[in-house]
Amino acid sequence: MYDSESALVGIVMGSDSDIAFMYQAVDTLKEFGIPYEVTICSAHRSPDRASIYASSASERGLKVIICGAGMAAHLAGVMAASTILPVIAVPLSASPLAGLDSLLSSVQMPPGVPVATVAINGARNAAVLAVQILAVADHDLATSLIDFKEKMAEGIDAKNRNLPSLLDAAAKK
Amino acid sequence: MYDSESALVGIVMGSDSDIAFMYQAVDTLKEFGIPYEVTICSAHRSPDRASIYASSASERGLKVIICGAGMAAHLAGVMAASTILPVIAVPLSASPLAGLDSLLSSVQMPPGVPVATVAINGARNAAVLAVQILAVADHDLATSLIDFKEKMAEGIDAKNRNLPSLLDAAAKK
Amino acid sequence: MYDSESALVGIVMGSDSDIAFMYQAVDTLKEFGIPYEVTICSAHRSPDRASIYASSASERGLKVIICGAGMAAHLAGVMAASTILPVIAVPLSASPLAGLDSLLSSVQMPPGVPVATVAINGARNAAVLAVQILAVADHDLATSLIDFKEKMAEGIDAKNRNLPSLLDAAAKK
Amino acid sequence: MYDSESALVGIVMGSDSDIAFMYQAVDTLKEFGIPYEVTICSAHRSPDRASIYASSASERGLKVIICGAGMAAHLAGVMAASTILPVIAVPLSASPLAGLDSLLSSVQMPPGVPVATVAINGARNAAVLAVQILAVADHDLATSLIDFKEKMAEGIDAKNRNLPSLLDAAAKK
Amino acid sequence: MYDSESALVGIVMGSDSDIAFMYQAVDTLKEFGIPYEVTICSAHRSPDRASIYASSASERGLKVIICGAGMAAHLAGVMAASTILPVIAVPLSASPLAGLDSLLSSVQMPPGVPVATVAINGARNAAVLAVQILAVADHDLATSLIDFKEKMAEGIDAKNRNLPSLLDAAAKK
Amino acid sequence: MYDSESALVGIVMGSDSDIAFMYQAVDTLKEFGIPYEVTICSAHRSPDRASIYASSASERGLKVIICGAGMAAHLAGVMAASTILPVIAVPLSASPLAGLDSLLSSVQMPPGVPVATVAINGARNAAVLAVQILAVADHDLATSLIDFKEKMAEGIDAKNRNLPSLLDAAAKK
Amino acid sequence: MYDSESALVGIVMGSDSDIAFMYQAVDTLKEFGIPYEVTICSAHRSPDRASIYASSASERGLKVIICGAGMAAHLAGVMAASTILPVIAVPLSASPLAGLDSLLSSVQMPPGVPVATVAINGARNAAVLAVQILAVADHDLATSLIDFKEKMAEGIDAKNRNLPSLLDAAAKK
Amino acid sequence: MYDSESALVGIVMGSDSDIAFMYQAVDTLKEFGIPYEVTICSAHRSPDRASIYASSASERGLKVIICGAGMAAHLAGVMAASTILPVIAVPLSASPLAGLDSLLSSVQMPPGVPVATVAINGARNAAVLAVQILAVADHDLATSLIDFKEKMAEGIDAKNRNLPSLLDAAAKK
Repeated sequence: MYDSESALVGIVMGSDSDIAFMYQAVDTLKEFGIPYEVTICSAHRSPDRASIYASSASERGLKVIICGAGMAAHLAGVMAASTILPVIAVPLSASPLAGLDSLLSSVQMPPGVPVATVAINGARNAAVLAVQILAVADHDLATSLIDFKEKMAEGIDAKNRNLPSLLDAAAKK
Repeated sequence: MYDSESALVGIVMGSDSDIAFMYQAVDTLKEFGIPYEVTICSAHRSPDRASIYASSASERGLKVIICGAGMAAHLAGVMAASTILPVIAVPLSASPLAGLDSLLSSVQMPPGVPVATVAINGARNAAVLAVQILAVADHDLATSLIDFKEKMAEGIDAKNRNLPSLLDAAAKK
Repeated sequence: MYDSESALVGIVMGSDSDIAFMYQAVDTLKEFGIPYEVTICSAHRSPDRASIYASSASERGLKVIICGAGMAAHLAGVMAASTILPVIAVPLSASPLAGLDSLLSSVQMPPGVPVATVAINGARNAAVLAVQILAVADHDLATSLIDFKEKMAEGIDAKNRNLPSLLDAAAKK
Repeated sequence: MYDSESALVGIVMGSDSDIAFMYQAVDTLKEFGIPYEVTICSAHRSPDRASIYASSASERGLKVIICGAGMAAHLAGVMAASTILPVIAVPLSASPLAGLDSLLSSVQMPPGVPVATVAINGARNAAVLAVQILAVADHDLATSLIDFKEKMAEGIDAKNRNLPSLLDAAAKK
Repeated sequence: MYDSESALVGIVMGSDSDIAFMYQAVDTLKEFGIPYEVTICSAHRSPDRASIYASSASERGLKVIICGAGMAAHLAGVMAASTILPVIAVPLSASPLAGLDSLLSSVQMPPGVPVATVAINGARNAAVLAVQILAVADHDLATSLIDFKEKMAEGIDAKNRNLPSLLDAAAKK
Repeated sequence: MYDSESALVGIVMGSDSDIAFMYQAVDTLKEFGIPYEVTICSAHRSPDRASIYASSASERGLKVIICGAGMAAHLAGVMAASTILPVIAVPLSASPLAGLDSLLSSVQMPPGVPVATVAINGARNAAVLAVQILAVADHDLATSLIDFKEKMAEGIDAKNRNLPSLLDAAAKK
Repeated sequence: MYDSESALVGIVMGSDSDIAFMYQAVDTLKEFGIPYEVTICSAHRSPDRASIYASSASERGLKVIICGAGMAAHLAGVMAASTILPVIAVPLSASPLAGLDSLLSSVQMPPGVPVATVAINGARNAAVLAVQILAVADHDLATSLIDFKEKMAEGIDAKNRNLPSLLDAAAKK
Repeated sequence: MYDSESALVGIVMGSDSDIAFMYQAVDTLKEFGIPYEVTICSAHRSPDRASIYASSASERGLKVIICGAGMAAHLAGVMAASTILPVIAVPLSASPLAGLDSLLSSVQMPPGVPVATVAINGARNAAVLAVQILAVADHDLATSLIDFKEKMAEGIDAKNRNLPSLLDAAAKK
């Protein structure tokens, strides 16, 4: 396990090849200064590790778990079965079905065991959602999120200032 | 607006016909003793109401927003655009496409503005997820969730005790 | 657990409401005289029961496990993670998505942990497949399967003999 | 905002990366000599800009709004909620789901708030549709459209004249 | 043909069984006082009628054409091929594929010949879109649309006033 | 087998329950006076019957084979493998997937072995296509098809004459 | 038009870019020595050309029409509306939806106007089907088809002889 | 045919181009020391070979058949029709539909004739499933599978040890 001390968010991925997608979650948590840990854990190839991870997560101090998995993505559901922490799923497009398989495997959970699902390959949003959840009881983090939202809107303004040159470039093609 | 005083969870639905599905969220929040409010608010037919609701939600004391909507379900996304609170979407099966339209309209949010999506018509799970989010900073609620999880497992035990008679009934058909 | 002594096939379903579909598997195993047991076990609501069931299945004498589940159907995958026995999945049409969700959740397993998936609601075929697997090392059962196949072909013959009256009936409508 | 004076058509896109697709709309409006403006505006990242844009569009002299957006494409719907102008959606293939998500998010609008949806990545057709709408009350523009239609048919004739050499080229491969 | 004198909107449907869906368009145009005509015309069973209808529509005074068709819904596309008027498609759910076939057949038009597609079975929105198009050059109609939009928002207010009794009713079930 | 003497078209269906759909093909062939035969034959349950049927079809005088089957509809493909006659598939909506499974199983044949696929449940069109194929070398049948086409167009005319009363009826609802 | 004298099969494609796919049909007809003609003709951009082509096809001596088109592929349906000849559709994968749009637009024809649909991009099979249709009344062509079928089977034999070296090559990777 | 003497598992593929996917099955069987044979056999292009292969498989000593095929993948179903051995299907992504066609063609088998379907392109899992089936009556093989499962879990451990360097590498990008 790769953990910063006193991690609040656990990022779990089904395979090391998922880092390409899931690193965005790491990056976003860093932006907000949230302590996190990263683990590779397969619901199917290492079920004991998955079960232990989930059932001990709360007492180890984690507040939210983010799971990235592709294909028949059971990781988030299996975690959610063994913890009362909010579990966020990032369905990954790891098969010819372009993530439709992992999306449905993640989101269509039965009554009583929810998984908070974000977009296919949406690791950045999984981290933003984790921050929003932590911010429910953390005033400073809430303030950071308000800043983050304002910067997004300002980013749109900046893009609009840059638009004339982009359109000129497109016109010349 | 239909609010219990000092509501922590706002349940918003696009139309009054959505109550049939969304009442499960109300019922589940009652089970956990969470103060809630219920509002009908359409992203398309009452955009001002939606915008005001979302941007004032935090200062009014809400901690989580649950949105139920069908078809091109923009309600959760539009709410998420104007609040930093966690927004949970319940895609409803309100068109011939059986909820695939509302699922994709809810979950496929762009980077920076997540929506925590649960199963099609999964209003009960939306409420459980809201409770999990609140429980991150509420020890008593966490204890309630542990009880809830245990009762679900015991429910499976009870169903197994009842299984012989169910199988006998099936055999006679 | 509802078990005939020395069961060879374990039929597991996620909810008691799945009996309507899964009873076909029971019926088919009875036809072939295969000892079986039936259990309700949810990957999400009773994860410990699921894990214990799977990891003890082989030493309890089971040879094949059949899992019926709907929605994000993780049951077969979770079982397959903890046993080396062949696990057969019956995806059930328990959501508005008509079983596409449970089909993809069952069949799209990652390398190393297969689930033998049959048709949506195909509980009868799950049982026939279980018999075929047992027949690999059971000559009498193989003979029963040859009879079964011949009877299916004869059934087609019988239906053809009955066809003129069916066509007459259709013509009168 | 990048506007020609007295623009009649507003082209709005969710991100600057959408220019690659949406420039076809610019090009087509230029062909017909229609004054237009181009803006980047996200329903989710800059909701105030979107709301102000739509609610002021009519009084600023716009007659039609074209919105290009991918994933959970709410832009056109959000615009349509705050204007009585015809709003045309171009669903963009910006996610692994190849535009099915943006198509359903755009077209499946609830009763009362239509969005005129064209093909995935169909920015050229969005502009042609805008011209058709303007031509309802503009006789010269209608004449231009008749010419445009004739040129398309003549283009097919020209392609047929060129067909023998194309077939010879294919035969040699 | 069933026409009010000097119709501005032509409603065309592929079969008389489509009236069940398409009557909403008639009703909506009546609400706005728009003269309309209704015709049954199949792109496949009466191609000459379809071709004549489309190519003469403009000179007969029509300004917008609304086409409702199911399955391989070619009607709107075929009309759009022979007129420069805006053509609005209502994909109908007339086959086991629930309108996905008619939606894709309507919306995925090639460059140069747009069809303005609304939701599956969305006949009411087709009419509202037709009114929006006519209102581009009709100030009174624009005023009517503003009223229509306000009434929709007020309808949401009214539904909220009625919400307590609806929730009480749901609680008693 | 249920055959009129010297049948030209063989109608084959996978199960007797398919008669509900496939009788339309019988009826249509009767309309055109084409001798036909009807057989129940499953690619999976009676493979020998299927193989013999297809490989002897041509010498028995059949000119076209129509196959109706649901689910993983292999019947038409298996027939086409063993005959050079044109084979027409009618995918049937016999599973929760509404015929998408049988459509793809029928139409997506590999190079060299075509199956002429018509709409889901489109048994009437399968028969019309069979008549069109026979009419390639039968002048009288071609004349019948021209009449058939004219009657379809006249049927649209008749429906239009009846339209005022249908609209009145709809208005009163 | 690019025609061999006295063409029996007309190959029509919606755009010159479709030659990449449709040349396989040309090649296959050449293999069987069937006179053919090739035309570019769009149902939407050149509707008159399409209508004239179809309605004159029979008297010009054509026996079968093959249509290749992508997106909302109306070409085959529009042709079928104006001829009694068998019309074969090749749905082309010309949009992000990978041909699902053109497949459904081609195959889901309403009762009375069939289109014989083959696989997405299946131009070779369209030609084989055309040959099968012509062979219904042409004994020599039927003999050629029997040879063709035998060669396919022999091709499988040849591939099996080559298999050991292919497996060795794969083993070395 | 390419067979090791006394093969227990038959790997059959529809075309030599499928080796790219199916070689994983060969490799996996080698890992477990299972005698196997490899054959190219098309349900459509070499139906006799397919039929003979299946109906003689059991007496030739085969215990399990693995079929890899794309598009309208009938190979596994056709095999299953003529043998009582367990038949495993590997749907291959050989068409623009990304394997959805071959998945549905493989898995949606009618009652009585099951096909054990694994993931799209999941040849490795097909082999693991074959080993699991053989292990039902082979204690040594069962032990090998337990080792295999343990190695997978250890592989996850190893990946976790390597994770810090992977995250550092991702951070530098």
